Amino acid sequence: MRDQYYEQLDAIVDDLVDLTGTVRRAVADATKALLEADGQIAESVIAGDKDVDEATETVEERTLLLLATQQPVATDLRQLIATLRMLADLQRMGDLSVHVAKIARRRMPESAVPEHLHPTILSMAAVADSMIDSASRIVANRDVAKAAQLEAEDDEMDLLRKDLFRSLLGDSWDYGVEPAVDVALLGRYYERIGDHAVSMARRVVYLVTGQLT
Amino acid sequence: MRDQYYEQLDAIVDDLVDLTGTVRRAVADATKALLEADGQIAESVIAGDKDVDEATETVEERTLLLLATQQPVATDLRQLIATLRMLADLQRMGDLSVHVAKIARRRMPESAVPEHLHPTILSMAAVADSMIDSASRIVANRDVAKAAQLEAEDDEMDLLRKDLFRSLLGDSWDYGVEPAVDVALLGRYYERIGDHAVSMARRVVYLVTGQLT
Repeated sequence: MRDQYYEQLDAIVDDLVDLTGTVRRAVADATKALLEADGQIAESVIAGDKDVDEATETVEERTLLLLATQQPVATDLRQLIATLRMLADLQRMGDLSVHVAKIARRRMPESAVPEHLHPTILSMAAVADSMIDSASRIVANRDVAKAAQLEAEDDEMDLLRKDLFRSLLGDSWDYGVEPAVDVALLGRYYERIGDHAVSMARRVVYLVTGQLT
Repeated sequence: MRDQYYEQLDAIVDDLVDLTGTVRRAVADATKALLEADGQIAESVIAGDKDVDEATETVEERTLLLLATQQPVATDLRQLIATLRMLADLQRMGDLSVHVAKIARRRMPESAVPEHLHPTILSMAAVADSMIDSASRIVANRDVAKAAQLEAEDDEMDLLRKDLFRSLLGDSWDYGVEPAVDVALLGRYYERIGDHAVSMARRVVYLVTGQLT
């Protein structure tokens, strides 16, 4: 009975790690849709979000069931509570990918992002991807040392967003208001995706060390 | 012993309701700082956010302690889990007020919002305030019927944000890129404050009815 319980706890960690993979694909696809102005990919990200929602809700139900039936204490209790938070982070990252895809869709057949900013957006997407990957490894291996790397990546994301804003608020911006608004919102969305990865990692650090960072 | 436990459960609900009051003040002050270009109020919102964080963390710790020591089941368990989610919503609403205050501060001594959009921003702030108030009453009284009103307010918020975007993307926008970016982000922040109020209400509806809306 207890063995089965520990198997279920481990299965939930595996599910969390799987979900980070799903979310990484959503972010990558949304970015592709955005930069290549690919309507089909944009639609697939938008339609696919219900799968992310369903998958997170399934894991949530199993977590709540374990909480209710096994009445875990101490570390196990904290792990299950942390899981619920991390599921909320993953769901939001999915939503944010949809926001990116919707901006992509609205500007078809053009790309919503002026050509010279494609490298910055690509870098933001790459940093976001790497941050979710780091968070996933921290969840899987409780590798708390990796959390410092994630914070460094978060600083990099912050610099990229500042670059983006400097460009669209500079004198040489001649694309007008609409692309500026899109790019500002996109900068915000990628930054928030990164924030949720940091939040997941901090939950694990708290579990392992008992310290809120 | 059980009596004391139920007192603690009730006290946590009271704390949640108190926190909604704190967050409503933060939103109202941030809006005042924004529209009146009042630097002192902007600073007080930014500095005050650590109080929101500390207050939510205190309630969080008490909730976790109850979970760990009382091992609640069924409705009580679900209520405590819902509390943790609602605390996260409240903390985010505080953060979003800080984002509003920071935009206000960046544009001093001007208001970041062109005069003719002040009524729209005021309406968004009023709807946000009313939404948090509704969420608070739903939490306090488990008045699930009120949730329908909150969804209607959320629709109103959506219309206001669309108004805002129509204005800043229209031909008559002659304030340039920077105010457009600010106003777009502000629209997003107020909308997200409303979303978190809806999310709190849905947690209560789920508690009472067992239905995810």
